[in-house]
Amino acid sequence: MEPIAIGLLGLGTVGSGVVQIIENHQEKLMHQIGRPIQIKKVLVKDLKKERAVTIEPTLLTTNIEDIINSPEIDVVIEVMGGIEETKNSLIQALKNKKHVVTANKDLMALHGSELLSIAMENGCDLFYEASVAGGIPILRSLVDGLSSDHITKMMGIVNGTTNFILTKMSKQGSAYEDVLKEAQQLGYAEADPTSDVEGLDAARKMAILATLGFSMKIDLDDVKVQGITTITERDLQYAKQLGYTMKLIGIAQIEDDKVEVSVQPTLLAEAHPLSSVNDEYNAVYVYGEAVGETMFYGPGAGSLPTATSIVSDLVVVLKNMVLGVNGKSIISPQYEKKLKAPHEILSKYFLRFHVTDKVGVLANITAIFSERGVSFEKILQLPVKEKGLSEIVIVTHSTSLEDFEGILAQLEMLPSVHEIKSSYRVEGNGHS
Amino acid sequence: MEPIAIGLLGLGTVGSGVVQIIENHQEKLMHQIGRPIQIKKVLVKDLKKERAVTIEPTLLTTNIEDIINSPEIDVVIEVMGGIEETKNSLIQALKNKKHVVTANKDLMALHGSELLSIAMENGCDLFYEASVAGGIPILRSLVDGLSSDHITKMMGIVNGTTNFILTKMSKQGSAYEDVLKEAQQLGYAEADPTSDVEGLDAARKMAILATLGFSMKIDLDDVKVQGITTITERDLQYAKQLGYTMKLIGIAQIEDDKVEVSVQPTLLAEAHPLSSVNDEYNAVYVYGEAVGETMFYGPGAGSLPTATSIVSDLVVVLKNMVLGVNGKSIISPQYEKKLKAPHEILSKYFLRFHVTDKVGVLANITAIFSERGVSFEKILQLPVKEKGLSEIVIVTHSTSLEDFEGILAQLEMLPSVHEIKSSYRVEGNGHS
Repeated sequence: MEPIAIGLLGLGTVGSGVVQIIENHQEKLMHQIGRPIQIKKVLVKDLKKERAVTIEPTLLTTNIEDIINSPEIDVVIEVMGGIEETKNSLIQALKNKKHVVTANKDLMALHGSELLSIAMENGCDLFYEASVAGGIPILRSLVDGLSSDHITKMMGIVNGTTNFILTKMSKQGSAYEDVLKEAQQLGYAEADPTSDVEGLDAARKMAILATLGFSMKIDLDDVKVQGITTITERDLQYAKQLGYTMKLIGIAQIEDDKVEVSVQPTLLAEAHPLSSVNDEYNAVYVYGEAVGETMFYGPGAGSLPTATSIVSDLVVVLKNMVLGVNGKSIISPQYEKKLKAPHEILSKYFLRFHVTDKVGVLANITAIFSERGVSFEKILQLPVKEKGLSEIVIVTHSTSLEDFEGILAQLEMLPSVHEIKSSYRVEGNGHS
Repeated sequence: MEPIAIGLLGLGTVGSGVVQIIENHQEKLMHQIGRPIQIKKVLVKDLKKERAVTIEPTLLTTNIEDIINSPEIDVVIEVMGGIEETKNSLIQALKNKKHVVTANKDLMALHGSELLSIAMENGCDLFYEASVAGGIPILRSLVDGLSSDHITKMMGIVNGTTNFILTKMSKQGSAYEDVLKEAQQLGYAEADPTSDVEGLDAARKMAILATLGFSMKIDLDDVKVQGITTITERDLQYAKQLGYTMKLIGIAQIEDDKVEVSVQPTLLAEAHPLSSVNDEYNAVYVYGEAVGETMFYGPGAGSLPTATSIVSDLVVVLKNMVLGVNGKSIISPQYEKKLKAPHEILSKYFLRFHVTDKVGVLANITAIFSERGVSFEKILQLPVKEKGLSEIVIVTHSTSLEDFEGILAQLEMLPSVHEIKSSYRVEGNGHS
């Protein structure tokens, strides 16, 4: 029986995992597909480099043309990263009628719809399960398992690095910088952690999730992003005291056909299923009109977990090849994009700031909130060490982003407000 | 465009949900399938009964032949329950080339492989996502999302009634009988709760999960079952004190090609993801060789959640119809069934018993354990109110089921052992 031929672009952490799974699980894969899988060519930068997996040296190439233009290759697996050049190579592969499986979230968040159109035109499959939440089959669950439902909200812990850092900060009471160093030593954070800690990585994944979940082309620029670098131990102490867990949460929500998508540090009620997702784990919480609350939990990164998603995508491509139905499962977005304006984005907020400790200060402050019709769920006033200052912590009832930002601007102009220390979105109810 | 015609067997809680979702989400369904869906006939017992949904009276029938033998019907959705008669009707429908979607776990656990073979022979689809864990797309995740991995362990909270009862007992410190009454009043438990509280419902779901996850035909009789009716408040207090949560857990495990499947009250380490699955929610924890730990969480029952799974299955059937590939996704089990013998089933155990408070008693008891090479992780001895008795609580290190049952038998014969109060399987590590 003629094997199905795979070209692998990249042999780093994830690429090595793909090789391992295809080798180790050949029997199971064969049972499902009915034909063996053969890795035919592997693109590498350096032919001589030591590899985590043993691979026949004749399979290696430094020339991408040997894969994307090879008549022998049926499916291209892209695990090398990169955006513009990679996009052009994959377009070339699709035009050469090669199916594509990719783990590249940057590429899919920026150029996903263009690539999917080209795949469809060429009768090719293009799958990218591994691009969001590593080993968790979340994209397939949205597209197949929950296909009959109207999804109204998705909340994701979709970046393992930041979840590791926030978990350690909460549990150990350590400072951000110290935990970041620990994460870097353990390999959970990169030497340049910007993309993770500033929320950009999570934003890309949320753009992909929102596009699929709401069947609407959401661009990366539509995602409002705030990172975790300014979170302090004091914020975490208040979170705990009030019955919340601090998480970097991607939120995608639709109401009256209008969408909001954001990534931001969020105080999440302790009872929420996402609150117990710790360390480097990822999870995506999905709320559907009919199904209610569901959650998908698992490893968000790593060689073998990510490779599991890739090879599972490959299995679907290969089953489709056997049935002759490649390219038929791509569904274009159903709706035109409509984004919520800031006055339509509603949420509760946590706010911490320092004021000079004088008579009438609190009255001035509460007046600013009540002018905009924003009431408090909780308010705490505590002395701080610096003399003459008080710390005020407020959890608001639901308010619009526009009103909240207006309040922040007014507070900053108030002479009695010494410094706004932090503000976070709040989801759910903490302790009463 | 000609609509796709559905015959619905049953219009109870779940059947009404199916009607609602097909009506309310018609636009989304149409976008995915390209053809409208029409409910053509609905089997009911009583034509005059008031319904939760409004339905054209001419669509109702009390004669199943109007559906399973009707040349107009493309797909049969079975939500009426029943085993032997229902099986014969569905076989008839499949032979008439009708695709089948069912929520019937009893039927699938007992006759799933026979029905799937008949479906395959007739080029028909047979899907049953709703039969396990209601709205959670767990079967599809096992078959597609994790298809490339070797699954080694599944643990499920797959019965909402018992999870509701155990959650309330733990949180309120109430007795089993009281909470059962509360659950019955709230509609979470049936008037005759036997199938739920004795673990039979969960056993059916575990047989289905194990069959799919291990690609091996596991029969209902292969599942060792123990219910929750004898769990006491005292057991729950000890569980909490030792750092565990008591859950009714279905475990399916494979090692060296041999399988064990059981449903039993289990002390689960508090840090385990399943420990925070509360109330009537369900979750299935899946351990794969490559992917590691994943968990799928959501509603295990209810009209609309269960109907979501059914209509999502229907979407796949209809997509397959459009592509002409029905019946091609059924994969027969890959392996011959091999079950573990009791000496191969390894676990930690919790054991609580009363002894007469005399010199040398503990020495006799520990001798029984050490003869079989079973050591203790924890041992507590406490006085009890009845005079002259002590309560002993032991958590063992890993031991075989054979040894543990042997120890229980020997303890019962020991004159100083007054009564064995309870014993449970233990998963993971509690407090140190």
